[in-house]
Amino acid sequence: MISRVLSAELPKHIGERVTIAGWLHRRREMKSVTFLIIRDRAGLAQVVLPPAAGGAQLPAADSTEEAVLQVAGLVVANPQAPGGAELTEPLVTRLSGPVQPPPFDLYRPALTATLPTILDHAPTTLRHPQLRAGFEVAAASAAGFRSALDRTGFTEIFTPKIVGSATEGGANVFSVDYFGQPAYLAQSPQFYKQAMVGVFERVYEVGPVFRAEPHDTARHLAEYCSLDAELGFITDHFDVMAVCRDAVAGMVDSVRERASLAMRLLSATLPEVPAQIPHLHFSDAMALISAATGEDVGDEPDLAPAHERWLCQWAEQEHGSELLFVTGYPLHSKPFYTYADPERPRYSNGFDLLFRGSEIVTGGQRLHRHEDYLKALASRGIDPAPFGGFLQVFEYGMPPHGGFAIGLERWTARLTGAANLRQVTLFPRDLHRLSP
Amino acid sequence: MISRVLSAELPKHIGERVTIAGWLHRRREMKSVTFLIIRDRAGLAQVVLPPAAGGAQLPAADSTEEAVLQVAGLVVANPQAPGGAELTEPLVTRLSGPVQPPPFDLYRPALTATLPTILDHAPTTLRHPQLRAGFEVAAASAAGFRSALDRTGFTEIFTPKIVGSATEGGANVFSVDYFGQPAYLAQSPQFYKQAMVGVFERVYEVGPVFRAEPHDTARHLAEYCSLDAELGFITDHFDVMAVCRDAVAGMVDSVRERASLAMRLLSATLPEVPAQIPHLHFSDAMALISAATGEDVGDEPDLAPAHERWLCQWAEQEHGSELLFVTGYPLHSKPFYTYADPERPRYSNGFDLLFRGSEIVTGGQRLHRHEDYLKALASRGIDPAPFGGFLQVFEYGMPPHGGFAIGLERWTARLTGAANLRQVTLFPRDLHRLSP
Repeated sequence: MISRVLSAELPKHIGERVTIAGWLHRRREMKSVTFLIIRDRAGLAQVVLPPAAGGAQLPAADSTEEAVLQVAGLVVANPQAPGGAELTEPLVTRLSGPVQPPPFDLYRPALTATLPTILDHAPTTLRHPQLRAGFEVAAASAAGFRSALDRTGFTEIFTPKIVGSATEGGANVFSVDYFGQPAYLAQSPQFYKQAMVGVFERVYEVGPVFRAEPHDTARHLAEYCSLDAELGFITDHFDVMAVCRDAVAGMVDSVRERASLAMRLLSATLPEVPAQIPHLHFSDAMALISAATGEDVGDEPDLAPAHERWLCQWAEQEHGSELLFVTGYPLHSKPFYTYADPERPRYSNGFDLLFRGSEIVTGGQRLHRHEDYLKALASRGIDPAPFGGFLQVFEYGMPPHGGFAIGLERWTARLTGAANLRQVTLFPRDLHRLSP
Repeated sequence: MISRVLSAELPKHIGERVTIAGWLHRRREMKSVTFLIIRDRAGLAQVVLPPAAGGAQLPAADSTEEAVLQVAGLVVANPQAPGGAELTEPLVTRLSGPVQPPPFDLYRPALTATLPTILDHAPTTLRHPQLRAGFEVAAASAAGFRSALDRTGFTEIFTPKIVGSATEGGANVFSVDYFGQPAYLAQSPQFYKQAMVGVFERVYEVGPVFRAEPHDTARHLAEYCSLDAELGFITDHFDVMAVCRDAVAGMVDSVRERASLAMRLLSATLPEVPAQIPHLHFSDAMALISAATGEDVGDEPDLAPAHERWLCQWAEQEHGSELLFVTGYPLHSKPFYTYADPERPRYSNGFDLLFRGSEIVTGGQRLHRHEDYLKALASRGIDPAPFGGFLQVFEYGMPPHGGFAIGLERWTARLTGAANLRQVTLFPRDLHRLSP
């Protein structure tokens, strides 16, 4: 391994000779001195080139921004330098150089380019510390999701993404040529995770899901990362919400531990996750909105984006919480496997979790009896034949169960304040974008 | 949540009244007593039904195997019972019943059915503790991979699975109808992870990869889980091998901590991972094989399965290691992005890791200079145009880097002694199998 210390470790080595390595982030020519700012995975380091040591005489290839340099030198304290230390008496070696200067000024505080241009050049633009920061937050969030569930007896599963039937309805599904047979890309691991409740009781999966969304909006992607969980032996959806709360709290804790620098770069703040996230029944939510706005929302099957925003403001004012569960969405607006509220069967034991103006989690209790599946499919006029492989699991004893799914990109966007999901998706896929 | 203790926790509750819940794994009628064996995610619990308390009088639906039961009772010590404790004076409640008796005797030590039958009924057959065990080992392995890399500064990435060009050659690639445009399923995250070395320096991904393998063998799957890692600022492939060794050691440690019961159920043992896994150059490996077997292997571009088995035996005898790195495979047998051995350019800075008779990891140093990519593509007669999106990253300074990929199913099969990858793949996909 190239023997080096990381930029962030320099303050621990004051008075020592060390080697750093990274990208030439910025070259700043001053009157009497030249600064090289070296970027590595831990941050930025300042190198001081006195005029005598080379300064302007540094070979051109070594001083083009994004050149990969190794710099040996003496660490001295300097309160003006990033981290309070800088490298002096440097010996610069170029490990690899750019073929041409990069098309973006990656050293500027913000990247001034349109989103399509940024995405077209993602391998390069993602080097910008502020763009990279969103993905550090995403990675920390996924780690926190897993560890929260690991602690409470969940088993990780890996389920197939090529499937023989379009499980959640035929729309918005991508077709695959599977050795000459028709097949599809999974829109969710829904049935697999339910089936695995029969095996492991509590399961989660972190993996891609695919939606052939014909919508060209800031909220739709053709492929995203879904954090899925499912658990058995529940009483009702409130048990699922309790696990969901702990998963979200684990995600927040993990971002605090692993990505606080990234959050600072994005000027983003973490929410407080209450021990009990406030909850509101769909019908009560509608009544509140109606009373407050005068809007007639009597027969709405779902919350409109404006309603979600209104409810988030309400939760903030009423409960001091940036998170709000809305429970009991009308049954007919939910997928056929949703469990009906035993008291008010028009409503479901389903829930959404709203955060900073929009829904980030959908979940609920599922049907667990075979006969209930047949009834639910029949009442919606859905042919049960394509579901045969999955319905078999309900023939042999399944406990009451439920689960939820968090869209990683949507969560990360809410957390970091990104206006468009594409800003927090490494290489987004949408109606018009298939590369890089 | 249904208030319950897990089967494995019973010994901690001797003398107390508790509730357990799970599946009726087995009903055993003795002369004077009936035993119900309840299976939950932690193991098995024995419930004693005295004749007076019901025994044979238990309603039929409650006593069909795989019924989901909740049993309240008094915990008493019994050295004969699983875990040394059993539940007496039981009160049995059925949470959900099978529509019909299951088609398999899940309580027998081994499931007596052909592999295709087992796979056709995967949601049910996976409930068999021995079949389930393989997936507990897989989950523990994935967790160990992640935590080993997390500890050494790696960032997790999520890269797209729908891609605009078939990156590793046009063969064996699945086609997707992408909003009317041709697209493909990613055969590996190879170029994405390399590009992300330019952003995070060290990255890993755990995710599905897709191969339209026309081979119907125990070693081929159309979809599998790949544990991918890539890191920058290396000297050569030996740095990558050191990280690979630590990842494998982390996987072994994690299986020991999280899945030792599963390993026992499978009568499987963990390997010792030496601090330095022995390594052998491809040309030396061939010379050894030639000398030992008299076989003429002079111009072989790769190791045959028999050679891999022979080398594993050799490593065991010579070094007492079940793991062996083979380095320096001939350059022309490796993908175009492979770095040539600077001393002997016929050979590559690539490696495989062999374990118990077969290759489980492939890795190596990659090219990092733009001009080297253009040369490598030209010398193989590959059109660089489709790679434009990825080659851009090498235009702006990339450090020397390399990486590796571990097939999770192949690793798990070697570790657990499964003869067929399908036995350790939750819902395998192959030439003939697309469901469940």
